[in-house]
Amino acid sequence: MTIQTFPASGLAERFGLVLRGANRDVSGVATLSAATQEHLSFLANPRYRSQLESTRAGVVVLRESDADACPGTALLAADPYVAFARIAALFAQGTAHAPGIHPTAAVDPSSQIDPTACIGAHASIGARSTVAAGAVVGPGCVIGEDCAIGEGCELVARVTLVKRVRLGKRVLIHPGAVLGADGFGIAMDAGRWLKVPQLGGVLVGDDCEIGANTTIDRGALEDTVLEEDVRLDNQIQIGHNVHIGAHTAMAGCSAVAGSARIGRRCLIGGGAGVLGHLELCDGVVVTAMSLVTHSIRTPGEYSSGTPLMPNRDWRKSAARFKHLDRIARRAPGSDKDTA
Amino acid sequence: MTIQTFPASGLAERFGLVLRGANRDVSGVATLSAATQEHLSFLANPRYRSQLESTRAGVVVLRESDADACPGTALLAADPYVAFARIAALFAQGTAHAPGIHPTAAVDPSSQIDPTACIGAHASIGARSTVAAGAVVGPGCVIGEDCAIGEGCELVARVTLVKRVRLGKRVLIHPGAVLGADGFGIAMDAGRWLKVPQLGGVLVGDDCEIGANTTIDRGALEDTVLEEDVRLDNQIQIGHNVHIGAHTAMAGCSAVAGSARIGRRCLIGGGAGVLGHLELCDGVVVTAMSLVTHSIRTPGEYSSGTPLMPNRDWRKSAARFKHLDRIARRAPGSDKDTA
Amino acid sequence: MTIQTFPASGLAERFGLVLRGANRDVSGVATLSAATQEHLSFLANPRYRSQLESTRAGVVVLRESDADACPGTALLAADPYVAFARIAALFAQGTAHAPGIHPTAAVDPSSQIDPTACIGAHASIGARSTVAAGAVVGPGCVIGEDCAIGEGCELVARVTLVKRVRLGKRVLIHPGAVLGADGFGIAMDAGRWLKVPQLGGVLVGDDCEIGANTTIDRGALEDTVLEEDVRLDNQIQIGHNVHIGAHTAMAGCSAVAGSARIGRRCLIGGGAGVLGHLELCDGVVVTAMSLVTHSIRTPGEYSSGTPLMPNRDWRKSAARFKHLDRIARRAPGSDKDTA
Repeated sequence: MTIQTFPASGLAERFGLVLRGANRDVSGVATLSAATQEHLSFLANPRYRSQLESTRAGVVVLRESDADACPGTALLAADPYVAFARIAALFAQGTAHAPGIHPTAAVDPSSQIDPTACIGAHASIGARSTVAAGAVVGPGCVIGEDCAIGEGCELVARVTLVKRVRLGKRVLIHPGAVLGADGFGIAMDAGRWLKVPQLGGVLVGDDCEIGANTTIDRGALEDTVLEEDVRLDNQIQIGHNVHIGAHTAMAGCSAVAGSARIGRRCLIGGGAGVLGHLELCDGVVVTAMSLVTHSIRTPGEYSSGTPLMPNRDWRKSAARFKHLDRIARRAPGSDKDTA
Repeated sequence: MTIQTFPASGLAERFGLVLRGANRDVSGVATLSAATQEHLSFLANPRYRSQLESTRAGVVVLRESDADACPGTALLAADPYVAFARIAALFAQGTAHAPGIHPTAAVDPSSQIDPTACIGAHASIGARSTVAAGAVVGPGCVIGEDCAIGEGCELVARVTLVKRVRLGKRVLIHPGAVLGADGFGIAMDAGRWLKVPQLGGVLVGDDCEIGANTTIDRGALEDTVLEEDVRLDNQIQIGHNVHIGAHTAMAGCSAVAGSARIGRRCLIGGGAGVLGHLELCDGVVVTAMSLVTHSIRTPGEYSSGTPLMPNRDWRKSAARFKHLDRIARRAPGSDKDTA
Repeated sequence: MTIQTFPASGLAERFGLVLRGANRDVSGVATLSAATQEHLSFLANPRYRSQLESTRAGVVVLRESDADACPGTALLAADPYVAFARIAALFAQGTAHAPGIHPTAAVDPSSQIDPTACIGAHASIGARSTVAAGAVVGPGCVIGEDCAIGEGCELVARVTLVKRVRLGKRVLIHPGAVLGADGFGIAMDAGRWLKVPQLGGVLVGDDCEIGANTTIDRGALEDTVLEEDVRLDNQIQIGHNVHIGAHTAMAGCSAVAGSARIGRRCLIGGGAGVLGHLELCDGVVVTAMSLVTHSIRTPGEYSSGTPLMPNRDWRKSAARFKHLDRIARRAPGSDKDTA
């Protein structure tokens, strides 16, 4: 493994940045606090600005407004995080995926595997499923029936596509994710639950990323849909017939219940929930652990919950919350029912 | 794959429904908005009533009270969702499971597999475990020691039964679920955690359904128990020694901590939590993302949390919540401590 | 399988307990309510004290202050739960793990497997990874590239270590856990998400335990770190570059967002969340389903949320919460803006 070295001037030219200071070579990337002379680092989050003065990084990518505080060589960028992401990609060691089907894989004869695709150890490919050119189905993945995996997709390991799951191009899915399991459809019938058949599928657009142990159920009748460039973190639950608009990102442990419709360019915070059958317009931001209980028609930021407090104080506020209606009625000039 | 067609009159007779309008053939099911002439659709949730007038569905299953608004043929049902579920099952394409043990499976010689059971690719069956008639252990499942899988169970794929897990009949488990892992039993001992042995098992009643990536730990001493017909959605966490009564349903991402006891016919909303050692009587409904912090002895609906608000407004309310005790004390006629 | 029997006097001597009452033999452990003559039971949680009088257990481990209420033989312990854990371990039936590599496993020739390690059925070991003496990699595990599994570790089944994950000694990981997946690093670039390379790894200290379906992402630049003796329950999400101090325990479904730093000996309740880039000092307790939104510099217990209420009452309080700022302003003597 040879170490690649890049001169700061070359990086400036390649990514359209402005070099300020001496031209140095860098052979890796690191945080401001951990970097040494041979590293390139970056400053994007103002929270870390205090680390700039003392960094030993050879080169720092930052905004022009932060450049004066930089002790060494700087690369000026309008968006330092984006510029850093592009540079860091030069140092990422991709895993080698040799084309072909691992001898331990179990492949249904009715499936179609492109010869440039890679099927890993102990993977299963079910009836009538297809794997397109350059796609990787990692070790331990289970692909059920009637699935389609598009060009350049990567299912890292132990991913399950249960049934009727169609992935666009370059979809990246992390281990433990389950797409296309039965939606949670049950009807109470004479005192017992009756299972409602789940006849739809899952449709995932190009360039989506789906986190580890995330679950996306298939639709009851129509498909559950992720439009292009949707980014889902780990441990997310997407119910049947949900529709998520392009470029929306959801943080870990968030969940969307059945038949809800999330707009484009939304940001859903960690642990947040959206109830079923709701509609969120484009550009909605939901903060962490908030619960969306009604449709949202105006872009902007929405929240629920209460602030973190020392438990002793919180107990007092919480006890009062129980009687909030009575307290409000007593407040002078109160309208008696604003609920 | 031949397309099956059913006359509305035949469906009416088969499922005890009343046909109103022309007798039509249907060859599939669809939502009101997506259906065309050859489809049967349904109206159960009043939210979708506005779609009834414009639907192109050949036949619609609905309540008699909605029938006048139906432009075409109607099948009248007391519970349209139940009737629809029964009809839709006619169109579900089951996955074929040939009896036998896949050549790549690893089966302990001390296990007992019924000859009509199906053991999928790359499955493992541990010592002294049994798989009954007609049961399916899908690809990539790991069955540990001393487990019993009842007649007609289906473990779709990549399900793990760790140890001492006994499933009744017709239990359906979706991919990624883990039953019978160690409960979270630790005791602080001289500054370090000491692991408490988890000697119990998991007992799952007939007709239960367990969602993708749901986890059910085995008991510390006695078993963790799901009575019959319990329905768990995806990503649910059930702690050790929990007992869940028959016909209870839990939505995605909900959790029950150790040794809690949930009654029969309860409904636990998505993301809701129940603390350990509590007892919930039969017929309790907990709304989404609520936290149950005390035992409940009266059936009914329970909630916690605050409503969703624009973040700017929420910040004001949240800031005031911190001082709620002081505000309440100032309110005229306030009893000084109602907590 | 022979049943082992232990005299109470022998247990007293072995674990430093005081025997009170007749010396009896016990051949198993059970709860107070389920125990019979041949069982040893324990009383640690005062919640179960009422069961002491009627227990049929042959021997009960309890505090001296509870001994008078014990109908039979007692073993007095300063910490009955710890003493019970040690005794119960005598009755735990470990799973046998024969050293060696299962013939169905797929092992990269550049990996190093100690001859005393056990590699289970359908496991994969990737390039340059190592498995130390006595370690167990259970059935269906996927170990990627450049991972190190320390002495005496146990990966029960279907565990994934994606890349650059290094485990200390005696780490126990339950099924479905995923360590070392890409952190959730994305940057918005000209209207599309750009993936930020995740170049770090995961470092797990000695004696950690990681629950079923828990996910721990690898760092963006530096490592995600768990110090020694960290105990994580099921379905927990740990973001990239998080650092968790020694002896901290987290209950099920809790989550820590990227770059947060949790101190030593913290207790994070079930479903609780910690936002990114925060710092929690040693000895912080966060109650269940609370959201930590700011750094904590003082040890103690912290909470957010509202109490559980009957839904009808909760609706009234929740509606008033929306107008809490107005209500507070009206309260006599109110400072107009305490926010």
